[in-house]
Amino acid sequence: MTGLRALSGACDFSYNESMTLSTVDAYADLLRRTKEHAVLQSCAAVLGWDQQTYLPRGGAAFRGDQLALLAALAHDRATDPRLGDLLAACEGGLANLDDDLAAANVRELRHSYDRAVKLPKRLVEELAKATSDAHEAWTAARRDDDFAAFRPHLEGIVALKREEAAAVGFAGEAYDALLDEYEPGATAAGVAALFADLTESLVPLIAAAIDSGKRPKAGVLERDYPIDRQRWFAESAAAAIGFDFSRGRLDTTAHPFCSGIGPGDCRQTTRYNARFFNEAFFGVMHEAGHGLYEQNLPADRFGQPAGGYCSLGIHESQSRLWENQVGRSGNFWRAFFPRLRQAFPGTLEGVSPDDFLFAVSEVKPSLIRVEADEATYNLHVALRLELERALIAGDLAVADLPGAWNDRFAALIGLTVPSDREGCLQDIHWSFGGFGYFPTYTLGNLYAAQLMAAAAAALPDLDHDTRRGDFAGLRGWLTANVHAHGRRYRAGELCERATGHPLDAAEFVAYVREKLARFYGVC
Amino acid sequence: MTGLRALSGACDFSYNESMTLSTVDAYADLLRRTKEHAVLQSCAAVLGWDQQTYLPRGGAAFRGDQLALLAALAHDRATDPRLGDLLAACEGGLANLDDDLAAANVRELRHSYDRAVKLPKRLVEELAKATSDAHEAWTAARRDDDFAAFRPHLEGIVALKREEAAAVGFAGEAYDALLDEYEPGATAAGVAALFADLTESLVPLIAAAIDSGKRPKAGVLERDYPIDRQRWFAESAAAAIGFDFSRGRLDTTAHPFCSGIGPGDCRQTTRYNARFFNEAFFGVMHEAGHGLYEQNLPADRFGQPAGGYCSLGIHESQSRLWENQVGRSGNFWRAFFPRLRQAFPGTLEGVSPDDFLFAVSEVKPSLIRVEADEATYNLHVALRLELERALIAGDLAVADLPGAWNDRFAALIGLTVPSDREGCLQDIHWSFGGFGYFPTYTLGNLYAAQLMAAAAAALPDLDHDTRRGDFAGLRGWLTANVHAHGRRYRAGELCERATGHPLDAAEFVAYVREKLARFYGVC
Repeated sequence: MTGLRALSGACDFSYNESMTLSTVDAYADLLRRTKEHAVLQSCAAVLGWDQQTYLPRGGAAFRGDQLALLAALAHDRATDPRLGDLLAACEGGLANLDDDLAAANVRELRHSYDRAVKLPKRLVEELAKATSDAHEAWTAARRDDDFAAFRPHLEGIVALKREEAAAVGFAGEAYDALLDEYEPGATAAGVAALFADLTESLVPLIAAAIDSGKRPKAGVLERDYPIDRQRWFAESAAAAIGFDFSRGRLDTTAHPFCSGIGPGDCRQTTRYNARFFNEAFFGVMHEAGHGLYEQNLPADRFGQPAGGYCSLGIHESQSRLWENQVGRSGNFWRAFFPRLRQAFPGTLEGVSPDDFLFAVSEVKPSLIRVEADEATYNLHVALRLELERALIAGDLAVADLPGAWNDRFAALIGLTVPSDREGCLQDIHWSFGGFGYFPTYTLGNLYAAQLMAAAAAALPDLDHDTRRGDFAGLRGWLTANVHAHGRRYRAGELCERATGHPLDAAEFVAYVREKLARFYGVC
Repeated sequence: MTGLRALSGACDFSYNESMTLSTVDAYADLLRRTKEHAVLQSCAAVLGWDQQTYLPRGGAAFRGDQLALLAALAHDRATDPRLGDLLAACEGGLANLDDDLAAANVRELRHSYDRAVKLPKRLVEELAKATSDAHEAWTAARRDDDFAAFRPHLEGIVALKREEAAAVGFAGEAYDALLDEYEPGATAAGVAALFADLTESLVPLIAAAIDSGKRPKAGVLERDYPIDRQRWFAESAAAAIGFDFSRGRLDTTAHPFCSGIGPGDCRQTTRYNARFFNEAFFGVMHEAGHGLYEQNLPADRFGQPAGGYCSLGIHESQSRLWENQVGRSGNFWRAFFPRLRQAFPGTLEGVSPDDFLFAVSEVKPSLIRVEADEATYNLHVALRLELERALIAGDLAVADLPGAWNDRFAALIGLTVPSDREGCLQDIHWSFGGFGYFPTYTLGNLYAAQLMAAAAAALPDLDHDTRRGDFAGLRGWLTANVHAHGRRYRAGELCERATGHPLDAAEFVAYVREKLARFYGVC
């Protein structure tokens, strides 16, 4: 009920429609509406979390009704012409809003509003229907290894996404308009150039590692890891890096995710495999990284762009940093390997800390993206960028996708794809129209390496602290340099401010090179 | 995503505001709006359930914001003047709506709409604020046994509820307007007369039972009942009476409840005491009774009065029927006592089925309503009706409440109240302004007995089926005679249709008399 007062408080302000809006009043009203929109979306986030965790199966259809209503109400608010008037009033007098935070909020709200109103309602509805149908079709097609059954759905979605890009508008190519939804300000050409650098470095490094013939001790990660002990160990690690369980949860779902519902309420999920250590543990480190970002956003700016996450690439950088840069480091396991032995007595008999570290750092080309190691993972992403960019440009027909996938997979990753189920049907993204989403995974890896290098330079005790299991310094640096800014700066600027230079692949390649040197003798 | 289509389908209808509404069109629009309102409230129900079950404690304040927004949106819809126009259009041409179901929907929607628009926004807000503050004050006052600290809050709430009654209007006395919120159509005078009959019969019966000196075997219910076994046993009993776990859940909370979120999604909760059998088991039977009602409402009328529950008294009749009329019967334990022994091996050594049945049927005056047996429970309720009616009438000052409570408690239940904590501070209801709520508990008991007697008359195999643990016949009778009607009939009419005569205390008194005769030799 405290909240009731808080919200009423925020609503005290009102204005007479006939009078000219002062910038300050317009800005206050803009923020009030933006917050209401965000609270509405946060209600949908609770329902979405519940849908994945505790919803009885008989309630699935009705949950669709509930989410559809909340989405419609949120859409009405996001496209309300009054927002346009308020934005114009703010933009006309930005100098009166005496801080750059307000300017950033107005800039980002304008960006969202323009995108929302440019999309015809008919297109939004057609996309909702097409992706709803396509999701079911994709599920069946993957199960049955039947690309032909999915093909017409994907063709429809590609056509609609091209329409969406045309409606939104773009300077370079259509794909830019789609990428912009996930990584505002990024362009296909810019990301492709970055990925070309990365691929050029990674391919020979990975090949050299494979050619070295070195392999970690077999089966270290595929022993008995009882699920209740895994849960305890993963939770204790998440708590150690700073995930606050009084303001969050960890549940079990078929597909792991992290949902930042709102201030004080951030929920991650994982799945357990009693015979494979990595799945839950690195999954939890990953989602806890997302969670730390959500938990450390400025709560008093909830609902404002300046209180929200910067981009999907930056969000992913936080998960990858804790999962890989920290969680797969020798320093981390100096603190945690003894605890691991205690958590799984007997399981790690005869396994040295180095054996274990090599096992969790193994580089090994594989067919499935979500099972890939931290180096080859990026080749999976580069492949997807190439293909989805060509699909949207009209340079690749959906009918030719499986062939193109298999050819490029062999060239980049060196494996023959035995089936579409393990090839171009493996990911959910295209079925929900998520063109432009994949690149953010690798952007996250690159940002993570560059941020970690900057943090290491700024924190002389970082290695020592990590070896002791103390992450307060690193977390504080990330909060100050990333979390606290929300979307005040676009990702590129945030990166430059935090690391001193624009994003490139150098730090990530150096990180991979150092690991491969250590375990495979590759230089 | 199915839901998105379902909802869009429901929205296809539209009309031009300038044209005269045909009754049929007005009715369709009315139902569309009503459904949207119900879906919005169901979203709040999910958030409410989550608040009691899995919400991280750090998310409590923000949850208040979320619920306040949903409440405000729902209130806007409930008081939208367009609803009034649509209702008028429907009422003007009810003959064109060719079934009594539509007439019932219009009648009940008019009732809700009139009540909602009669309440000034200022009063609604003041009540929200006063009850929010009072809840915290009550929690502390009960803990500290400090009525004086709660007194000003309760005075404020009584004054506001009197204002509410005046705004809503009433024919007899102010209390009627409040009772009407929970038990539409009931009056204070009518309920008080019923309770007078009941009390007159119960008091001597209970006294005779106590005087008989007979007691169940000591401690049968306070042995080791491991919680995991309790959960299994309670769930299997709930499933046996027909609670559908594919369309519902059972979770653990501090305060048990049942929330019918929407079609296919009904969630009950309970709490476990490893040294007391009754708490979880009869709690689950009770909530499962509520749940059966929710699960068997006509799902295709969701959101309409004809698809909602009839009244709190009828809702409570369903919980009491399964908890007591069935769950504390000899026939039930013929089926379940052997299963109980299996579930708790060793715990029931030396306890006969009759010993057990006497233990769960014991009549024993006690201080706390929620711990009371099924007979004296109604005296607790009669006391509260008397006092809250006097408070609202202005015949009893809040300052005099503790004294009045203690005097009347001694007279009705025969015990000296040692503290306000165990007296007039024990219940949450007045702190949330729930004047008129208490009587529905005893109305539920009376309806339950009268419905059970009618079902027994209609179902010749009822005893035999119950002894075999087969409840399909009883459940079918309740669905046909109660659940399927939703709020098509008011409670009084529903009762007459189902049982052949208006509600009275006779069947309940006969039920108690038979039990006391069996265990205490009272006639």
